[in-house]
Amino acid sequence: MSLEPVDIGLLGLGTVGGGVVHVLARNAREIARRAGREIRLLRAAARDPAKRRAEYPGLTIDGDPFAVVDDPRVAVVVELIGGLEPARELVLRAIANGKHVVTANKALIAQHGNEIFAAAEARGVTVAFEAAVGGGIPIIKAIREGLAANHIEWLAGIINGTTNFVLSRMRERGESFAAALAEAQALGYAEADPTFDIEGVDAAHKLTILASIAFGVPLRFDRVYTEGVAQITEDDLRYAETLGYRIKHLGFARRGPDGVEMRVHPALIPDRCLLANVDGVMNAVLVKADAVGTTLYYGPGAGALPTASAVVADLIDVVRSLTTDPTNRVPHLAFQPSAIDDAPALDIDAVETAYYLRLSAEDRPGVLAAITQILGAEEISIEAVIQKEPPAGAARVSVILLTHRVREARMRRALSAIEALDGVHGPATRIRVETLA
Amino acid sequence: MSLEPVDIGLLGLGTVGGGVVHVLARNAREIARRAGREIRLLRAAARDPAKRRAEYPGLTIDGDPFAVVDDPRVAVVVELIGGLEPARELVLRAIANGKHVVTANKALIAQHGNEIFAAAEARGVTVAFEAAVGGGIPIIKAIREGLAANHIEWLAGIINGTTNFVLSRMRERGESFAAALAEAQALGYAEADPTFDIEGVDAAHKLTILASIAFGVPLRFDRVYTEGVAQITEDDLRYAETLGYRIKHLGFARRGPDGVEMRVHPALIPDRCLLANVDGVMNAVLVKADAVGTTLYYGPGAGALPTASAVVADLIDVVRSLTTDPTNRVPHLAFQPSAIDDAPALDIDAVETAYYLRLSAEDRPGVLAAITQILGAEEISIEAVIQKEPPAGAARVSVILLTHRVREARMRRALSAIEALDGVHGPATRIRVETLA
Repeated sequence: MSLEPVDIGLLGLGTVGGGVVHVLARNAREIARRAGREIRLLRAAARDPAKRRAEYPGLTIDGDPFAVVDDPRVAVVVELIGGLEPARELVLRAIANGKHVVTANKALIAQHGNEIFAAAEARGVTVAFEAAVGGGIPIIKAIREGLAANHIEWLAGIINGTTNFVLSRMRERGESFAAALAEAQALGYAEADPTFDIEGVDAAHKLTILASIAFGVPLRFDRVYTEGVAQITEDDLRYAETLGYRIKHLGFARRGPDGVEMRVHPALIPDRCLLANVDGVMNAVLVKADAVGTTLYYGPGAGALPTASAVVADLIDVVRSLTTDPTNRVPHLAFQPSAIDDAPALDIDAVETAYYLRLSAEDRPGVLAAITQILGAEEISIEAVIQKEPPAGAARVSVILLTHRVREARMRRALSAIEALDGVHGPATRIRVETLA
Repeated sequence: MSLEPVDIGLLGLGTVGGGVVHVLARNAREIARRAGREIRLLRAAARDPAKRRAEYPGLTIDGDPFAVVDDPRVAVVVELIGGLEPARELVLRAIANGKHVVTANKALIAQHGNEIFAAAEARGVTVAFEAAVGGGIPIIKAIREGLAANHIEWLAGIINGTTNFVLSRMRERGESFAAALAEAQALGYAEADPTFDIEGVDAAHKLTILASIAFGVPLRFDRVYTEGVAQITEDDLRYAETLGYRIKHLGFARRGPDGVEMRVHPALIPDRCLLANVDGVMNAVLVKADAVGTTLYYGPGAGALPTASAVVADLIDVVRSLTTDPTNRVPHLAFQPSAIDDAPALDIDAVETAYYLRLSAEDRPGVLAAITQILGAEEISIEAVIQKEPPAGAARVSVILLTHRVREARMRRALSAIEALDGVHGPATRIRVETLA
């Protein structure tokens, strides 16, 4: 880590900008261990610099974003102000100044990306835009690099969290469209003016980008057929369910023999599909490609920290390209070899999980009490018990116990004692429970 | 595309090797459009060269893999012979010869990766191993690059297709473990000797790799706690379901304050989780990280073409690093700017989908017949009809129709005619149906 830090200039200190500042500070050490170099926030521009200076003491904050873009010390400009202008002008000026750019601006990329990328290629700099689609899901990287061996046939995505939240609430709670939208706004999932989300414009921006990187065609936002969700009723959601479907607001792109199909609209999808089960503000993109088949990428599609995750991943990519031997850009084990950390591997006895236990026990009073007493002595609390009545004539029952979390060592001791009980036969079946929360 | 092709040497022409040959040939043009350079299979080594020469006419095939590794024209060696030796010796020799290596060998990376990566770093070459975990899912790339801004807290994966297939069949069909395993073998999803899969060794290899790249710790296969699936019974699957869970064979790794936890074992997971709904031979990895939150990556975990997808993606990464300006390694829109293809964007009228229609119709004879006649005249066939009885006293019913696929233009014409019918009131609700298959 003897290399100089790379200096970053940030345009915009709103929700996502604040998230980027937070992630860069909190994960500074892990980021440097991966990138091989410190990523330093040199200066930022915000609409209300005085207020932001109070929030981020120590950070140089200007009111003029062009001052950041023109600062010769800034190597990478992060554009988070959104909208078309002055974002376009700022990005083009940063490129002209020889700076790399990271942006989360889907409208800018979808509508002016062809111009911006041509300028970047002419100047030999990178414009990275992972955060423009799918929030924190590394979907751009997955399609552009992970699936690079494939002919991509089609992709379908839930790429707008607001509409997905509204449709999920309508289905789960039988709410009207208006009530679900009001709730999304109250929870901060929808803008005060949700037109771009509800009418599908935001999803169309994202689909434009996905179609382009999947099929190798120019960005053509004006050719995306776009329908919103406002006409969907609770009745439609119910009828769809009766027919074995869920209604989702989908972005869909397909490369066929006659050309590229790009459309954003509500769609019924079979309820057994994983995509049908992506609810709330989560996003997911399903990609069908000739070699790999079907892959799916799922995660939070918006929010300060998820979006910052994608922005900072792009920063690390750019910084790595400035830093390391180009033939060895990404460290084999993700972190620079000198930064591999020899943390101990825990012994299984020290691991804590909940448990499912199945015992074969005699069907007489006192056996279950003896079992629960042993568990209690090891401070293992029980969440659920199923005792299955024995078949006629049989004297043994299956006792199924679901426990709360406990250290493996305690469970092992308890099970030895339980298996030694007079009324318990054979070894217990013991399966760990993971709530994945 | 004026650069010389990059020459590849392939070790192993079994299932995956054959898949790599196929993908390189079939997608040669798209691969070159992305990589900016042709990837050329120069020579290969196989155990039975005469037989393989007949299968791949024109390809130079040796019996001796060291001849490939020592060929000075070979820039990248693809190791697909599997097992520890001679794979380890071949990979180390390729590295010593200054060649980059791409491998799908999870056992080799999990057990000898520390040594191999140290040799590669000393020699300035890359050893790429995306295909070692999760088949065609770009999970190594997602964690190593896509989530690089994050402190990763834990990950949980269904990373062995054989055990997942067996548990899925047992649950869906009430089959015994032995019957489900026999079926997996008959379908080619399990090896003749399925020990490594069933006892969790294969999953432990993969978990070793995932834990290392997630947490920045060395590869420590010997510290993974490993349990197989053979003790799971149909009863357990049923009881778990009663309790609201599914049983999956999971790899789980967590970085805690006391160290790293790595374990492979069956686990109950809540049935509402996406991971619980990953069935058959599919794999999925759920990653919990501090900035992005929860993301999930899903796809085929094995098979010739999915694995080849990952191998060739690694090849493209390596070739890009040999080729382009290092500050601009991956093209902005995935394909080299000169290779962007101006395919037409289809008009929505030319798009074909199935439809859900909801109409408000008078509850009298002849109306439904008139509707279906109009649809028939446009060659729109009907898959399902729901006619909802009107509430007492109401004269209108909701008619819901599910159609087969048809061109948008035909549906538009049909709907105009239907909306003009005497017994139909107001505009129809029309939602497209996507089966995503």
